[in-house]
Amino acid sequence: MGADLARELAIPAETKLVLLVLDGLGGLPREAGGPTELEAAATPTLDRLAAEGVTGLLTLVAPGITPGSGPGHLALFGYDPLTHRIGRGILEALGIDLPVTPLDVAARGNFCTVDGAGRVTDRRAGRVSDATCRTLSALLDKITVDGAEVTVQPVKEHRFVVRFRGEGLSEAVSETDPQQEGQAPPKAEPLQPEAAKSARVVNAFVDAARGVLRDQHPANMVLLRGFARHPALPTLRERFGLRAGAIAVYPMYRGLARLAGMEVLPTGTTITEQLATLRDRWAEFDFFYIHVKRTDTAGEDGDFAAKARAIEEVDRALPALVALGPDVLAVTGDHSTPAALRAHSWHPVPVLLWARTCRPDTVTTFGERPCEAGGLGHLPGRELLTVMLAHAGRLTKFGA
Amino acid sequence: MGADLARELAIPAETKLVLLVLDGLGGLPREAGGPTELEAAATPTLDRLAAEGVTGLLTLVAPGITPGSGPGHLALFGYDPLTHRIGRGILEALGIDLPVTPLDVAARGNFCTVDGAGRVTDRRAGRVSDATCRTLSALLDKITVDGAEVTVQPVKEHRFVVRFRGEGLSEAVSETDPQQEGQAPPKAEPLQPEAAKSARVVNAFVDAARGVLRDQHPANMVLLRGFARHPALPTLRERFGLRAGAIAVYPMYRGLARLAGMEVLPTGTTITEQLATLRDRWAEFDFFYIHVKRTDTAGEDGDFAAKARAIEEVDRALPALVALGPDVLAVTGDHSTPAALRAHSWHPVPVLLWARTCRPDTVTTFGERPCEAGGLGHLPGRELLTVMLAHAGRLTKFGA
Repeated sequence: MGADLARELAIPAETKLVLLVLDGLGGLPREAGGPTELEAAATPTLDRLAAEGVTGLLTLVAPGITPGSGPGHLALFGYDPLTHRIGRGILEALGIDLPVTPLDVAARGNFCTVDGAGRVTDRRAGRVSDATCRTLSALLDKITVDGAEVTVQPVKEHRFVVRFRGEGLSEAVSETDPQQEGQAPPKAEPLQPEAAKSARVVNAFVDAARGVLRDQHPANMVLLRGFARHPALPTLRERFGLRAGAIAVYPMYRGLARLAGMEVLPTGTTITEQLATLRDRWAEFDFFYIHVKRTDTAGEDGDFAAKARAIEEVDRALPALVALGPDVLAVTGDHSTPAALRAHSWHPVPVLLWARTCRPDTVTTFGERPCEAGGLGHLPGRELLTVMLAHAGRLTKFGA
Repeated sequence: MGADLARELAIPAETKLVLLVLDGLGGLPREAGGPTELEAAATPTLDRLAAEGVTGLLTLVAPGITPGSGPGHLALFGYDPLTHRIGRGILEALGIDLPVTPLDVAARGNFCTVDGAGRVTDRRAGRVSDATCRTLSALLDKITVDGAEVTVQPVKEHRFVVRFRGEGLSEAVSETDPQQEGQAPPKAEPLQPEAAKSARVVNAFVDAARGVLRDQHPANMVLLRGFARHPALPTLRERFGLRAGAIAVYPMYRGLARLAGMEVLPTGTTITEQLATLRDRWAEFDFFYIHVKRTDTAGEDGDFAAKARAIEEVDRALPALVALGPDVLAVTGDHSTPAALRAHSWHPVPVLLWARTCRPDTVTTFGERPCEAGGLGHLPGRELLTVMLAHAGRLTKFGA
């Protein structure tokens, strides 16, 4: 809503915006009455930015809803994550850096084992090795079918991605995974009339794969599910006139940035290297998205101290970012990943926004509890970008 | 929105949720600078739960909108009270414990006085006694009409409920109350083509009632209004897989719970007896709704001290609830009823949520003003159930 209005009101400006996403930033106390990971971490620079800036809590999708990385990031990029759903096939493709375009339908594939009668005896083919996955994916990648270009790329173990590219493909195709053993993989069926071509293409691929894999026991067949089209999002440039660059280490996040129309910039693997990239490319873009994964990984591992250390590492690197003189800097997460839960969670995510034009609130440290009283309030995640644009002088008045 | 998404994401879990509704909980200070009823009450257990849990303020319908009991409860049960409106006839039926089903249309009835020409001379028949209301309702209850089963039950004084049960009944029927004296009751007219049968049934009933009541001056005629169908809500089990039990003393609230698909459990009249019922039935349900009326009654009476005492009584009983070990406990109201206003009001309602998975906020006492800074923020009432489900481990992640 705010973001739709912002599109209407966007005006050019010579300002620089930086969105720094610490993946899974929000946390929980390790023990009753204790601090969260962020509150436990020593973060003098984040605290100073919080004191000079304005803070709040973001709800990325809706209260009580645990966001996946896709919806969490879409919200931060100013899209409504309920309207723009990214299917599993596309996310799997993004996760291995396989480019997708509006012509593509992607699916998640499993190598599986079938018996002589074609019935599935192991939906994961005994979890074949990564090396086998690569070898067999390369065989499947050679398959050609009428009406679409086929690309197959390995993921890990029994998992691969298949991308069908062509005119008139639809994602409305039923899966070929029977979801239980003892049954033959069903044919893909069109779920809507316009998906007839897609179903034909998918079935032709599956038939060819059966032939190619015949002698590759235990990985002698494939199961496909999660058919998904590229969501064809309007880009940040189309919406707000932003030349946007992404500085992310992991494929999934580079892919999500591409969906939003960002240029993905080659970079290193540490925050220091990412900020060096930022400095080197500073003149070329209006908006930078920087993604830090380690906070989330530590949370998923249940490692409270490692998550706090990952936050401290970012804090130590931050002066190099501040020194570039961004007009607007926002620091937040795409969801919470409390070490106590070892998983994404629904808890709101702290956010700080620093700009010369912000109205500083009473909050002087960056933490979940201080942010509850912040001047941004409790904000839907997708509104953050609008607020950033406002502070960057990139939105004109609504109405006279 | 959150609740629709929650339906999509619901997963089974072996967790227990308790929603304790103190009717009309929100209040106002008695004198400038003073505490509200809740803030004045001594509530050591609620304060402890607030300190260990997370708090906020609920807006049940929309800012500035004063909720009736129906919309307030529907929101707490996770329904959008603007989408699902419960008509007056249904609420009147629920209020006297008259069961309603999706086959039913219910209406509010008045006994009235008509003159020899059939013109209404008193729309309330001189407010006949409850005893007369019972006697005359029993006469009307014997009426039979083609196409529907008729049930008439007394409410109070000149008021009764009539329930029409049958296939193909519609609520789109005009009222038979002229709303002013000196006019004859108009015939019921269908407001939509499919309501022709309903109008015929209603008019047949009214004609029969005129005959039955001819010699019962001053209550010698009836007026019907507020025709309403059962809203046919999807149940909590259908939406979230919850086996839900209601422990409520008053008929209206038992009826609202039935609309949501809860099983209404026989219980006593005090919070202590209600919590004994909770203990006895603990194993049978996933979700319990407990309703306390006295807070609202005291507010409507303008009795600040009685409302504070009613809250204290609940607080003293609460350890018995906590001892059962609920996974998630939420305490809130369905609206505010400040003694200072002697009526429902639009002021947001304090809420506390206690769970092992919550992120404690800075709030250490349960009161309207402390809750303003709570970690739940200012939340639409209908989102509370989603947040409860999240804390109970009953929602999976949205998107990958």
